Amino acid sequence: MKRIILIGSGNVASHLGFALKKSNYQITQVYSRELENAKKLAERLGADATNKFQALTTSDLIIVSVTDAAIAEVLDELNDVPIVHTSGSINLAIFGDKFEKFGVLYPVQTFNKNIELDFLETPICIEANNTEFENELLYLASCISTKVVSMNSSQRKQLHIAAVFASNFSNHMFTLADDVLKNAQLEFSLLLPLIQQTIKKLEDNKAKNVQTGPAKRKDMAVIQEHLNNIQDKDIRELYTKISSHIIKTHE
Amino acid sequence: MKRIILIGSGNVASHLGFALKKSNYQITQVYSRELENAKKLAERLGADATNKFQALTTSDLIIVSVTDAAIAEVLDELNDVPIVHTSGSINLAIFGDKFEKFGVLYPVQTFNKNIELDFLETPICIEANNTEFENELLYLASCISTKVVSMNSSQRKQLHIAAVFASNFSNHMFTLADDVLKNAQLEFSLLLPLIQQTIKKLEDNKAKNVQTGPAKRKDMAVIQEHLNNIQDKDIRELYTKISSHIIKTHE
Repeated sequence: MKRIILIGSGNVASHLGFALKKSNYQITQVYSRELENAKKLAERLGADATNKFQALTTSDLIIVSVTDAAIAEVLDELNDVPIVHTSGSINLAIFGDKFEKFGVLYPVQTFNKNIELDFLETPICIEANNTEFENELLYLASCISTKVVSMNSSQRKQLHIAAVFASNFSNHMFTLADDVLKNAQLEFSLLLPLIQQTIKKLEDNKAKNVQTGPAKRKDMAVIQEHLNNIQDKDIRELYTKISSHIIKTHE
Repeated sequence: MKRIILIGSGNVASHLGFALKKSNYQITQVYSRELENAKKLAERLGADATNKFQALTTSDLIIVSVTDAAIAEVLDELNDVPIVHTSGSINLAIFGDKFEKFGVLYPVQTFNKNIELDFLETPICIEANNTEFENELLYLASCISTKVVSMNSSQRKQLHIAAVFASNFSNHMFTLADDVLKNAQLEFSLLLPLIQQTIKKLEDNKAKNVQTGPAKRKDMAVIQEHLNNIQDKDIRELYTKISSHIIKTHE
């Protein structure tokens, strides 16, 4: 499995392509509906670009890394070839009975096209329709990551939900903190050591066991004082809901 | 200001005591309502322990590091002496007109008694009732931290609210992720590289600008699929509320 076609040119496709190229895999073609997008990524990968499925050549593996909603229509256009998608949410069953070897290669990470990351540290979850192909995928994944695990579609979906809480929702908490600070003419950098320590604790402790703050202490006076001083109605509501849930789950 | 009395023996008092001792300040006494608690901390600081306000001796500074609700009653018991509290929420005005020199020394950090941290990286916010005392506090703070800033009570309160979002609430998101994973027999460690990358992005980017995930993409199919697969009603409600707010604020 040395010659790979990438379908998609978004955040995941890009970082996966960079990591594979670094490990001496050859990305032969990049497909995107928008030829310009395909070209941009293909250029960085030394690949050909296309926006036509008929133009796809022979390869050892096709990686479909498009939005969940677009996966089914992409599969419709492809002939039988070893194939994976990279989605956390989509069941293996989406491949139907058209392909002989199909699977999933889901990297547990938050990807932004222009922000570098260490792919070797990114866990990759593998699933396949048979053991032989699973082993091929495990090998490929182990060339770009030191943390490769097999799991089924149902576990992967729960992992994806957990990842939304751990990354997207925690990042939204940082966004709300930034909003609050901006109104007080304060710099977000004041919070960075606090945030870093919050994360550092997770290396050796369960998050629940190291919770701190007014809700954990059931300090209703501070909570009320905070609510009185949050101007934005939506942010106030989120403060209330999350505090209530911390109180309820730390009894 | 070399001889310091600590009122309180909790997470903040402990870490502040350790940091001051390390910088060659002398903690002469530790007061706690529970003598046993005072003794435990005093022993680590080479200080005397007491649970009686009358037993407090002369000092250059008293640091009141107790729960917000207990500050006023502590102040009632003390005679005039240079004094600070360490709360993010409590206004400087709580000192009334009894003290000649009073102020605030608020460390922006999440403290757990038994988890070490680098106090030098912890921002300290200073406020005082006059410039001379403010300068004394700025100097003291600069001996234990490289990040010392002056701010007023109203800014400090907003910073404290922001800190709750950035630390307590993000930590609760990690707790919820852990709950979801546990039900799927998956290890929390699978999420650590994702969480670390989420934080790393904040060093050079605004949180809002690097948001990813289904809510940011307005991918309602994934969101609905996630909601269908979250068993716990409360967690499902938080998923809904936070996703809606991400969608609303990323238009």
